[in-house]
Amino acid sequence: MTFDVLNVIGTVAFALSGVIVAMEEDYDLMGVYILGLVTAFGGGAIRNLLIGVPVSALWDQGTLFTIAIIVMTVAFIFPSLWINRWLKFGILFDAMGLAAFAIQGAMYATEMGHPLSAVLVAAALTGTGGGMIRDVLAGRKPLFLRKEIYIGWTLIAGLAIGLNLVTGTIGLWLVFIVMVVLRMLSVHYQWQLPHRKIEQPAN
Amino acid sequence: MTFDVLNVIGTVAFALSGVIVAMEEDYDLMGVYILGLVTAFGGGAIRNLLIGVPVSALWDQGTLFTIAIIVMTVAFIFPSLWINRWLKFGILFDAMGLAAFAIQGAMYATEMGHPLSAVLVAAALTGTGGGMIRDVLAGRKPLFLRKEIYIGWTLIAGLAIGLNLVTGTIGLWLVFIVMVVLRMLSVHYQWQLPHRKIEQPAN
Amino acid sequence: MTFDVLNVIGTVAFALSGVIVAMEEDYDLMGVYILGLVTAFGGGAIRNLLIGVPVSALWDQGTLFTIAIIVMTVAFIFPSLWINRWLKFGILFDAMGLAAFAIQGAMYATEMGHPLSAVLVAAALTGTGGGMIRDVLAGRKPLFLRKEIYIGWTLIAGLAIGLNLVTGTIGLWLVFIVMVVLRMLSVHYQWQLPHRKIEQPAN
Repeated sequence: MTFDVLNVIGTVAFALSGVIVAMEEDYDLMGVYILGLVTAFGGGAIRNLLIGVPVSALWDQGTLFTIAIIVMTVAFIFPSLWINRWLKFGILFDAMGLAAFAIQGAMYATEMGHPLSAVLVAAALTGTGGGMIRDVLAGRKPLFLRKEIYIGWTLIAGLAIGLNLVTGTIGLWLVFIVMVVLRMLSVHYQWQLPHRKIEQPAN
Repeated sequence: MTFDVLNVIGTVAFALSGVIVAMEEDYDLMGVYILGLVTAFGGGAIRNLLIGVPVSALWDQGTLFTIAIIVMTVAFIFPSLWINRWLKFGILFDAMGLAAFAIQGAMYATEMGHPLSAVLVAAALTGTGGGMIRDVLAGRKPLFLRKEIYIGWTLIAGLAIGLNLVTGTIGLWLVFIVMVVLRMLSVHYQWQLPHRKIEQPAN
Repeated sequence: MTFDVLNVIGTVAFALSGVIVAMEEDYDLMGVYILGLVTAFGGGAIRNLLIGVPVSALWDQGTLFTIAIIVMTVAFIFPSLWINRWLKFGILFDAMGLAAFAIQGAMYATEMGHPLSAVLVAAALTGTGGGMIRDVLAGRKPLFLRKEIYIGWTLIAGLAIGLNLVTGTIGLWLVFIVMVVLRMLSVHYQWQLPHRKIEQPAN
């Protein structure tokens, strides 16, 4: 199974985060589906585009797609089932999605024989590209560019896999666990990467 | 001729909707062209990307491109010719564009042998992708994710064509007419798909 | 060397403009890198997509990528080194980037045998696509669609190269110089393309 389970967790977590944003924006049922799907599959689409896999390879993921549709439908009909739990466990699921997708992106780029720079970017964009599209379509600033090292942790997957520091299933699971733990710690302790605010000149 | 006429109507309608938004945002002439072109051709570009047709196939549509440029130029120079009429007939033209592009997207995806999920997404994104890019570039929230079942009607094209429920030119025209009529009814009676507003937590 | 030097200047200028916007938005270090990279390489990625070059050709630009990373790192650590100079010289660098990238885009599209329409769009989007993505990711309206003929000057590269009006290195440098001079004049004298503001109807 390797990462199939993780892929499912990541897809469900990202689809649900799209559903939540869509409901906050009062989108209708189709808007909910669209936003959930771009969040769940958008990162992979951008990754495919950047590393030279046909974007249409998306459509081989029929099972994931079906799971996402069912989950979004249930989530929309019975919000009371999960909204409150999401506030508690959503960040954990999202961290698992981030880690699973970043690892997957780094593996694809490495298999294609791309240089380390491509592996790092593929890990970063597979992990966060879906959320980027979600935020842009909802008219929001992508907050993960600012807070709690979110995108920064994808470097772990990119470096570990791109530099061949880990091998085999156990190695990949180790990367996964390290990423999830570090992400949860960074949320809990509000770790920050360095940042520098400068003033935007009046325009 | 089949759908060539519809393609022209759709392209013109979407280009004009881009021109209107660009003028509302006080974009200059080049901004008007850019926004009109991405609205008219952006949906097809995204569709090509997702179903595995080279995006550069866009450039074979030289006639449509020329028509769009001429229409946008005239529209920019003589706004009094059409702005008031647009308020009356714009929604009808836009509905024809939505239907024509959704049908075209569903047909392309079916011809490529993609599964139903791909056909539905191709219909939805060919019909609405250009408007999405238009709204994002203008810094607006894509309202069609919220109102009057806009994107929802593309399911008709996706299901009818993806499930092979219609065949031949007459079948396609039937789908077209049903979509346009339903879209106009949904605007007139303000039909809504179900939606659920939840509060965005303070951030 | 031909345009290698210009490519470097353009890449550095665009990366720095991404860094500035990222710092104004208080993005963290990873956010700064991401925004700088999409600004510097996003236009080329869109251009590749539109004219049918694999987007993954990006990864052959290893040297440019390395230069961009180093420049962004130094820029982030020592902002006092350049922020004030940027206010003076940033517009000049940006004009050089705009011209170099527009010329490059027009040349690629011409070499691929695309029609003039594709050459004009490739010049426009290679020159400005990175800035578009930058503004969208930062939640800002792309101002260059409005002000000082920015995107309009890319027509010079598109027409000169698409219509074969210039040839050879000297011809290309001439186009470059004309574009940079005109861009600087348009900023200084606040030249504008025609624009027409219409009111957005209450929604």
